[in-house]
Amino acid sequence: MKKVLAINSGSSSFKYKLFSLPDEEVLAEGLADRVGLDDSTFSIELANGDKHVEEVEIPDQETAVKLLLKALKKYNVIEDLNEIAGVGHRIVAGGEYFKDSAIITEDNLQKIFDLKEYAPLHNPAEGEGIKAFMKVLPNVPEVGVFDTAFHESLDPVHYLYSAPYDWYEKYHARKYGAHGTSVRYVANRTAKLLNKDLKDLKLVVCHLGSGASITAVKDGKSYDTSMGFTPLAGITMGTRSGDVDPSLLQFVMHKKDISIDEMIDILNHDSGLLGISGVSPDMRDLKHNPDKRAQLAREIFINRIIRYVGAYITEIGGADAIVFTAGIGEHDARVRAAVMKAFEFMGIVPDLEANKVNGEKTITKPESKIRAMIVPTNEELMIERDVVRLAHLD
Amino acid sequence: MKKVLAINSGSSSFKYKLFSLPDEEVLAEGLADRVGLDDSTFSIELANGDKHVEEVEIPDQETAVKLLLKALKKYNVIEDLNEIAGVGHRIVAGGEYFKDSAIITEDNLQKIFDLKEYAPLHNPAEGEGIKAFMKVLPNVPEVGVFDTAFHESLDPVHYLYSAPYDWYEKYHARKYGAHGTSVRYVANRTAKLLNKDLKDLKLVVCHLGSGASITAVKDGKSYDTSMGFTPLAGITMGTRSGDVDPSLLQFVMHKKDISIDEMIDILNHDSGLLGISGVSPDMRDLKHNPDKRAQLAREIFINRIIRYVGAYITEIGGADAIVFTAGIGEHDARVRAAVMKAFEFMGIVPDLEANKVNGEKTITKPESKIRAMIVPTNEELMIERDVVRLAHLD
Repeated sequence: MKKVLAINSGSSSFKYKLFSLPDEEVLAEGLADRVGLDDSTFSIELANGDKHVEEVEIPDQETAVKLLLKALKKYNVIEDLNEIAGVGHRIVAGGEYFKDSAIITEDNLQKIFDLKEYAPLHNPAEGEGIKAFMKVLPNVPEVGVFDTAFHESLDPVHYLYSAPYDWYEKYHARKYGAHGTSVRYVANRTAKLLNKDLKDLKLVVCHLGSGASITAVKDGKSYDTSMGFTPLAGITMGTRSGDVDPSLLQFVMHKKDISIDEMIDILNHDSGLLGISGVSPDMRDLKHNPDKRAQLAREIFINRIIRYVGAYITEIGGADAIVFTAGIGEHDARVRAAVMKAFEFMGIVPDLEANKVNGEKTITKPESKIRAMIVPTNEELMIERDVVRLAHLD
Repeated sequence: MKKVLAINSGSSSFKYKLFSLPDEEVLAEGLADRVGLDDSTFSIELANGDKHVEEVEIPDQETAVKLLLKALKKYNVIEDLNEIAGVGHRIVAGGEYFKDSAIITEDNLQKIFDLKEYAPLHNPAEGEGIKAFMKVLPNVPEVGVFDTAFHESLDPVHYLYSAPYDWYEKYHARKYGAHGTSVRYVANRTAKLLNKDLKDLKLVVCHLGSGASITAVKDGKSYDTSMGFTPLAGITMGTRSGDVDPSLLQFVMHKKDISIDEMIDILNHDSGLLGISGVSPDMRDLKHNPDKRAQLAREIFINRIIRYVGAYITEIGGADAIVFTAGIGEHDARVRAAVMKAFEFMGIVPDLEANKVNGEKTITKPESKIRAMIVPTNEELMIERDVVRLAHLD
């Protein structure tokens, strides 16, 4: 039986999920954590729920790949490495080059490294992850699945900044967006749940995790999205600022006598919910925290979602559904309720009872003019499907 | 008969308008241009339409003030300087200090200079303008009218950035907005035209000039506004970028090897419509220019207006009217038509015939669920009224 691996490599970790074909069952999943660091661990969770965590030295991604393959055999998930028919890798930045997922070649693997300017923390680690798999499994097709590719459909009106045009011509400085793999999955799943062709639906997808973005989907394509040149822009996130007045950077850089790199580092890592609250980047921690700034952080997060959803419903001239996904979107009923409330003036009628219980469903009443839904995301499934499609495993 | 002067001082110019009381007729208006530079001129236009322009050396603001007073006497607009009962000055940045217009004292004049970090090009010039008037007319009350004051009503949820909270505590880094004097006039005028109390109206005011902003007005107050810490943020403007991903600054600064000050200078002066089109910062020039980038600039400008109006209508839960004002808002029928079209899904029914002809009026049909209007702005009248109110001239 053929199997496909979906891989998400971070700078010091890689997550994996093994799918069986053609039934798309998850046979095993887990994490190689603290790769290249002290106290590294390798974990595997099997379909029967058994979980094994091993403290083991993992000096590099190649070791992690070997540990994974050994574990899959050890726990009888696979008998032979030949069963692995393809490996899919999540890649953050595809720039203007990767307009769809792609079978990895020597040439376009180099391209992934070349695009590191657009995702310095992600692309190099992801490229290294691919390299490790190519070395250990030389005859298995590797597929890159790009977070930016779904937003390739954006019109220049939406992706260009109002800056000197040669920044775009010379440096490809434009909006690329992110979370595309998640939004693509969620949009398609929503269409299926509604028994409609995605091409006939207008959706606003709220991917609300520690990274968070809002995307307008129209004619089956991404129409506009809140993340920008990088995943720093858009709405408030766990530690990322989202949109700020560019002049604020100048003002604070002079006040604190810091460089632009230090400033962007602060905006990426010390801002957002963490920056406002001073307590935590996690909406769960803030939820029951009575501190004024903790509550303010939650309110600001909700407000920025409402702003973007309002802007995007307008851009696409109405919506069939507002869809909530990812950690917060799938699990924070209060956030969903607050967003729905803001759209009552457009005819949304929330079903607050349905909203209280998480899970894939509609959370508005039948008479609601715009539907609101929870649709849990599944990027790994999307990656698996792209491997099947591009490596012709079906 | 008492008279009030309204003054708008720039870095090398000052505009004036003289109003009679209590009828608020404009008796004279004009400009001292290129103050402190070569080829300076002083101009005056009288109520009968006569216009006089004089090439004259104007080394400083004080000379400009003296020229103005001399001209007012020469052309028989006033007989005696005592007729001038008050002078109002437009001030860009009032920070968190000036929550309303204020009679100028030695102390708060210093405060205007102290706030120069928030408007480096404007506050010092405006402070100098006040000083010049205080010297030449020592017994006349001077009133500062702050562009930011109308936005004092913003809630922290709307004015705080999702950045480290101590930036706000230590440096007062927050959204202040701008164009407040214009929006305050337009909102009040709109209420009068609709024969309603402003407190009962929900409005979105589009101040579209070479600087441009969108403001949501609710309960008679500014609820949210697109300009930010400075007037650089928000929608696309003549030469200003409006919102951009903060990471874009870092990326381009490294590419071009420029400092943050050079970067902000580019975003203020070489961006916006000028940056995109490469041709002109002026919507009138772009309108009939068939060049692709000229048209793209117009489309991006319109898109950013639509985004913010959609976001703000959502924030205030619907709108009684979308109001267009300032140069482009009052004179570019195509921009108004394009914005109205985007809101047809909310029930706007544009009256395209009415829209074709500029002037103070409604440009939607009677059955329109949201009204759209043109309301020419008049900041000087607002300044005059604040002088009357604060100097008790009524």
